[in-house]
Amino acid sequence: MTETDAPPHPFDAAIALTPVADDRMRGRTRPEYANMVGPFGGITAAAFVHAVQQRPDRLGDPVALTVNYAAPIADGDFDITVRAARTNRTTQHWTLELTQNGNVTTTATAVFGTRRDTWSDTEPAMPSAPPPDAVPVGGFPDFIAWARNYEMRFVDGAVPEQEGAEHPDSTTTLWVRDTPARPLDFPALTALADVFYPRVFLRRGRFMAAGTISLTVYFHADAEEIAAQGDEHILATARAHRFSRGYFDQTAHLWGRDGTLLASTHQLVYFKD
Amino acid sequence: MTETDAPPHPFDAAIALTPVADDRMRGRTRPEYANMVGPFGGITAAAFVHAVQQRPDRLGDPVALTVNYAAPIADGDFDITVRAARTNRTTQHWTLELTQNGNVTTTATAVFGTRRDTWSDTEPAMPSAPPPDAVPVGGFPDFIAWARNYEMRFVDGAVPEQEGAEHPDSTTTLWVRDTPARPLDFPALTALADVFYPRVFLRRGRFMAAGTISLTVYFHADAEEIAAQGDEHILATARAHRFSRGYFDQTAHLWGRDGTLLASTHQLVYFKD
Repeated sequence: MTETDAPPHPFDAAIALTPVADDRMRGRTRPEYANMVGPFGGITAAAFVHAVQQRPDRLGDPVALTVNYAAPIADGDFDITVRAARTNRTTQHWTLELTQNGNVTTTATAVFGTRRDTWSDTEPAMPSAPPPDAVPVGGFPDFIAWARNYEMRFVDGAVPEQEGAEHPDSTTTLWVRDTPARPLDFPALTALADVFYPRVFLRRGRFMAAGTISLTVYFHADAEEIAAQGDEHILATARAHRFSRGYFDQTAHLWGRDGTLLASTHQLVYFKD
Repeated sequence: MTETDAPPHPFDAAIALTPVADDRMRGRTRPEYANMVGPFGGITAAAFVHAVQQRPDRLGDPVALTVNYAAPIADGDFDITVRAARTNRTTQHWTLELTQNGNVTTTATAVFGTRRDTWSDTEPAMPSAPPPDAVPVGGFPDFIAWARNYEMRFVDGAVPEQEGAEHPDSTTTLWVRDTPARPLDFPALTALADVFYPRVFLRRGRFMAAGTISLTVYFHADAEEIAAQGDEHILATARAHRFSRGYFDQTAHLWGRDGTLLASTHQLVYFKD
């Protein structure tokens, strides 16, 4: 058996898409990336990025992505429609939709673009953290299937274990990478943007109904910086700003071990306490 | 002349839309809200919110909005198409497009929803600032037409005046409100999300080509909290995280004078140095 006969990484199997029409690709949910209801939001976001990447007329790499989780995706096949709303000299705007039996479950917009050398700077400092090997492996409760595909080492704000132990702030910081190991690329980075459990669980010290409504990712890193991460851990840190009347927001940053700010990502989440 | 004969506020004139088909409304750019090329991005974002608000089948109030600025909008008429991609019990997902002569210039997605009482908390502290009256009125250079519709009092990070004076960080904080005064509502709050000049101007101490590619707004406040602001100043604060290879991001918060975090908002901006 040659190397190319090896089964694909579960992540690649989960974002695999087959063209079925000019503007449509078909994928299939995978039990490995199941969440409580429907698939992990990060894998759906990654599939959208992957859909645009497969288009022959695609310009450059991901710059910005917004995914709106309108309804649960049922286990089984799904279609992603991909339309270039506008192509400029250096940026391209995509409109996407995920449907099952003609019903929209998820909408998205993506901006792809080319990058060129300019003045550059990163303002915030990377959070200080012990090296990954010095932080014990933690994770989510075992019934969250998708989380078993990530090695998580919580530096701060681990999943609450003691029922009702409230936490004064919503910050979680963890070292995280795919398991089995897989070199980082744009789809994998996209999925990592949604790797955090809902901030309200941490504040309230308990699980409750909660789900991402809208996720935005800004890709700071270019393809070379992403490839340079290899399969090293990413330092992922998230916090909320306001919880109010059934919704809260989350802002997160994904840092390479080498100190590169790879992505900033934001989401709006509903919760029911 | 009765009160109802008074001319509308320039803001309301700029977001006025007339139905032309079931899923389409027509608006017109207004010179009062012109930017360097095309209209102020905030007024376009506000028009999208206003378009959904006018739909008879609209559910609740704005929760999340993403606007992608794909191409400049020319002076004159434009059409906004509005489609409810999915209606749930408490949330509704909208897909929107702004076109001129059939060409897409702007795409957007909006989530509207109902709110209900839950546990609530705001994590970050409102930035400390002297009261608005104690801060001198500043603003943008006079050739930026749209900025003349805002009373801006810069607490920190005013528009650079001295060519080439670099600034160590990208934070701008200002008191801002519509002028002439106008009670705050969802469209006005939406426009304020884009009231900041490009962060790269502050860091580099000079103007250069720059423009928002994608803007996201998370509406924390409900209609009552927004109405309670009246025409008081809003404390608006913004900063960037990373500038790299022609793009940078911005995260901002809009605070009511009463300490209410009204909205968190994020954008991805291109620049050419």
